[in-house]
Amino acid sequence: MNEPPLPKISLTPEQESELSMQRSLHFETHRATVLALEELLYKPFSVLDHGFIRVVDYMGDDSAVVQAARVSYGTGTKKVREDRGLIRYLIRHRHTTPFEMCEIKFHVKLPIFVARQWVRHRTANINEYSARYSFLDNEFYVPAPENLATQSSANRQGRGPVLEGEEAANVMRVLREDASRAHAHYVEMMNEDDGRTVQEDDRQGLARELARMNLTLNFYTQWYWKVNLHNLMHFLSLRADKHAQYEIRAYADVMLGIFKQWVPLTYEAFCDYRLRATEMSAQALAVVRRLLAGEPVEQLDSGLSKREWRELMAVMARDI
Amino acid sequence: MNEPPLPKISLTPEQESELSMQRSLHFETHRATVLALEELLYKPFSVLDHGFIRVVDYMGDDSAVVQAARVSYGTGTKKVREDRGLIRYLIRHRHTTPFEMCEIKFHVKLPIFVARQWVRHRTANINEYSARYSFLDNEFYVPAPENLATQSSANRQGRGPVLEGEEAANVMRVLREDASRAHAHYVEMMNEDDGRTVQEDDRQGLARELARMNLTLNFYTQWYWKVNLHNLMHFLSLRADKHAQYEIRAYADVMLGIFKQWVPLTYEAFCDYRLRATEMSAQALAVVRRLLAGEPVEQLDSGLSKREWRELMAVMARDI
Amino acid sequence: MNEPPLPKISLTPEQESELSMQRSLHFETHRATVLALEELLYKPFSVLDHGFIRVVDYMGDDSAVVQAARVSYGTGTKKVREDRGLIRYLIRHRHTTPFEMCEIKFHVKLPIFVARQWVRHRTANINEYSARYSFLDNEFYVPAPENLATQSSANRQGRGPVLEGEEAANVMRVLREDASRAHAHYVEMMNEDDGRTVQEDDRQGLARELARMNLTLNFYTQWYWKVNLHNLMHFLSLRADKHAQYEIRAYADVMLGIFKQWVPLTYEAFCDYRLRATEMSAQALAVVRRLLAGEPVEQLDSGLSKREWRELMAVMARDI
Amino acid sequence: MNEPPLPKISLTPEQESELSMQRSLHFETHRATVLALEELLYKPFSVLDHGFIRVVDYMGDDSAVVQAARVSYGTGTKKVREDRGLIRYLIRHRHTTPFEMCEIKFHVKLPIFVARQWVRHRTANINEYSARYSFLDNEFYVPAPENLATQSSANRQGRGPVLEGEEAANVMRVLREDASRAHAHYVEMMNEDDGRTVQEDDRQGLARELARMNLTLNFYTQWYWKVNLHNLMHFLSLRADKHAQYEIRAYADVMLGIFKQWVPLTYEAFCDYRLRATEMSAQALAVVRRLLAGEPVEQLDSGLSKREWRELMAVMARDI
Repeated sequence: MNEPPLPKISLTPEQESELSMQRSLHFETHRATVLALEELLYKPFSVLDHGFIRVVDYMGDDSAVVQAARVSYGTGTKKVREDRGLIRYLIRHRHTTPFEMCEIKFHVKLPIFVARQWVRHRTANINEYSARYSFLDNEFYVPAPENLATQSSANRQGRGPVLEGEEAANVMRVLREDASRAHAHYVEMMNEDDGRTVQEDDRQGLARELARMNLTLNFYTQWYWKVNLHNLMHFLSLRADKHAQYEIRAYADVMLGIFKQWVPLTYEAFCDYRLRATEMSAQALAVVRRLLAGEPVEQLDSGLSKREWRELMAVMARDI
Repeated sequence: MNEPPLPKISLTPEQESELSMQRSLHFETHRATVLALEELLYKPFSVLDHGFIRVVDYMGDDSAVVQAARVSYGTGTKKVREDRGLIRYLIRHRHTTPFEMCEIKFHVKLPIFVARQWVRHRTANINEYSARYSFLDNEFYVPAPENLATQSSANRQGRGPVLEGEEAANVMRVLREDASRAHAHYVEMMNEDDGRTVQEDDRQGLARELARMNLTLNFYTQWYWKVNLHNLMHFLSLRADKHAQYEIRAYADVMLGIFKQWVPLTYEAFCDYRLRATEMSAQALAVVRRLLAGEPVEQLDSGLSKREWRELMAVMARDI
Repeated sequence: MNEPPLPKISLTPEQESELSMQRSLHFETHRATVLALEELLYKPFSVLDHGFIRVVDYMGDDSAVVQAARVSYGTGTKKVREDRGLIRYLIRHRHTTPFEMCEIKFHVKLPIFVARQWVRHRTANINEYSARYSFLDNEFYVPAPENLATQSSANRQGRGPVLEGEEAANVMRVLREDASRAHAHYVEMMNEDDGRTVQEDDRQGLARELARMNLTLNFYTQWYWKVNLHNLMHFLSLRADKHAQYEIRAYADVMLGIFKQWVPLTYEAFCDYRLRATEMSAQALAVVRRLLAGEPVEQLDSGLSKREWRELMAVMARDI
Repeated sequence: MNEPPLPKISLTPEQESELSMQRSLHFETHRATVLALEELLYKPFSVLDHGFIRVVDYMGDDSAVVQAARVSYGTGTKKVREDRGLIRYLIRHRHTTPFEMCEIKFHVKLPIFVARQWVRHRTANINEYSARYSFLDNEFYVPAPENLATQSSANRQGRGPVLEGEEAANVMRVLREDASRAHAHYVEMMNEDDGRTVQEDDRQGLARELARMNLTLNFYTQWYWKVNLHNLMHFLSLRADKHAQYEIRAYADVMLGIFKQWVPLTYEAFCDYRLRATEMSAQALAVVRRLLAGEPVEQLDSGLSKREWRELMAVMARDI
């Protein structure tokens, strides 16, 4: 991803006015400040059909990493060239603590089944909108036709080609109908007034904390998610990866764009040493050495499984 | 809860035979071993309508807490009376690290909406059954009639009295029908053979990682959940509390019974200094002091809000 | 502590100029900004004989807590009175996650034996000055005469009265001489040029990572320490407590003053519900109930140990 | 390291008898049990001049990893060949959670400066012997002559060749004399009776929590350290590495031997995919591809720094 996508999310008038209010406030600060990120602050970037991500706050910049690594009295920064070298050294040798000195806080709207994967990253702070206390809107995720993947026949966790024709249409119809019905019943059981249903005076309604169980996993929830730069990189190395499910990767891709604006030197090092790097096993290294020595190697005498062999050959052939 | 409930869960023949196999294995060990917990090992305790908890492994006992607190070369144990005194001292003064030296591992089957609350306790280890790779059975939670609570009118997060008559019947019917339909469509979209539906040869089927989004939040999932004794106590102090949602409290109550069998001295101290204890604010303490001095105190001149006043009066009157 | 002490630390000219440089920089930001904390930013507050604490960065304010608790689109803030009420409610009911949304980063200079206690708080981020790579200055802690406490005769972990006369003088002399000698040997073994010792050309010198082992535990180290507001409160509830060792409490006290400037509503609630609050065990509560009912209670029939009885009586009598 | 070293540590008679008592206890358990590790249980392995490591408890085995990965009702184990394949797959794809299901607890005696590095691994549980409450023995680390390394001239964090002759002798003498004197003063200031010093009746003695600051960083402390298998591997990948300081690596090497006895399949996968594996940056991969295509590559046109180039050439030439 080269540039973060432009905001195109549609907000309610109330939300728009709150966002404008936040953007209109200016303060003077002595803190490390990143102009490029200030530009993006509070603006929601659209993800999937109804989701978004927006940066709500941040702390630190590339220099804060350098400052912490040097435990310096000042900003820690020498010349940009030296800072870049130090940051690359830290990433390369997995000196992770200086990257823990920067924080970023997002407001995210996402389907519940994505939230269930996301929350497994335990080293972040979360405040989720509570359907125990509050009412969930009738908003749910339906994949776009190009993302209606079939089950991979080769791989239990993979996706195969895209569904087509009537089968695709049926899936989208079913997802929409079941979610809509689930939400209508959710409202009805609680006997809430959501503007569409009429409340009945003689019914108390089921408790919210119970009624929510009737919603399907594609309903949208939202949360504040705060993470330090080290843990953000760990999250992105797993979730911006091609093995991640498309729906969470869509969020990771937007976060990569934001990451780049925030701490460009760290972003560059992260791409070189993590995202586009490869870990080679002892056996794979041995194969590469033999190949470099001009020795012919076959999978059978390589010490690698068929799958590992295939992956190694792919890495060696890849143009990146 | 006095005694852990007897196992009454119905398992499939395969699960039964795996459980029997595990129970039939005996090993000799030099490790700290708790007879009462060995008795419960692997046996599932029924929770809600289809859920269960069973202990899969454990490490340490009351003596291990003492041993760690003393950093001793042997078992750390002196006399039971001294050990009990030390454990009570540790709990009372929040010396938490010795309790981190014991671990317990559970296998839990629970509704997804309960799992979503549970997972917010980040200081535990989890392996959850993956609906991305595997097939979820047609099992979902429907509250028993006595748990069909209404929304509290006084308290946004509370439950009021129980629904009755036709309204209750309707809720249970809706929950059952929506979940059943969601699961039937889940199977159909994947074009899986679940023994009830006929697979169609000309359809590839939607990927599992997508089809699962059609399931409702009351479907059962399961996981291995491992936690140390300190974090277990923290979990129970929040989830065995009367403010916790009934459905997660049902699990916490069973865990309390297991906890008692495992480390009885720690359990006793936990009940006295946490579960049945109260934290008094500076203002509440001042009120109690004035009352003890024979001075009349009213809410208005107490420094407490109405709600705090009510809570303090309730605590002072409570028989425990 | 009412007001944070004025900075009185003496820095080197280089450090002074770096600090001035940082203070001279002004940026415009849309982020939550706390004027009172901006005033303190970067300025070192003196602690013990050579230590200091200074705030290097922060993120969030009282409103950020409210915003996260409401998962709101805007600042979350309604009226100050409502915000205050919500924050007190959150603290009282141990809803801790909204306080995790604020962060603060300190630069701290502290004796190694204090750092060893401090580091046991694992939920913070640390970058410590490395004596493996760098040279440690000849700066060590010697207690002021009024802090030269004797071992308590009643309590294994407590302090008794202060040493006096010749014994006090001897202790201070020994601490000074042993530390000075240790540092001189440290420099000599490394064959470093510290401006006082002459380097010998024919010696390579011991590796820094080894030579440091000759230093005593009162030598000063320094680190960047970053923590969220929830974990800061946990740290302060233990380390600003009268049971904490004086030397770490001296740091905690300064941090309390900074905390108050940063998030005054949270600070107030923290004082009322944590710092000046008391946890009463089930047995202690029973005693208070009996006393309120006019029943005479003695330690022997109270269910409390002698020590617990003493502590309860002290709490009940305390003027705060 | 092929085999864990035989125990050769000398214990006091009291410690010996406590160890024998623990070894003499046998229990029956249904839990996963590892015979090879039972053999090692409680026995101290010598490290450095006065340190040791011993296993005090453990939980789980290779099968427990498999069981958790499959969230199975039984032991999870199919055939050994399949289990091995699954474990290698999990390590290779960084599916880390199943390895969190095993725990091991060590009792370790180690110099304070080593403990200071060790404690930076925050995802473990620690109970350290407290010099605030208890008396520290007169035991300190002095490097063996073959470990008296000089400071590397090429690398700020590295070691050069070993000190020799008089310079070596001087260093060892200084370390010994300063530590001995520090301890004698420690005892004297506290006015303790350590069997060598005479207590003076007319002195109360300095509080232990203060006197300890006079000890040097090579004094031995001890702790209980408990960690799960995932975090143990992370610890070992950093501390059994050639960049780690020799003194902590000595402990890591012994732990590698214990690890191998405990979970041999996981150990094998760890060696292949972590310990003897290499991470290749995007640039390094490009160089390897060009070399495999028969293209000549020089450092200057490689996109690698001199240091990275040197490291890559070393990896490619290495026989492992």
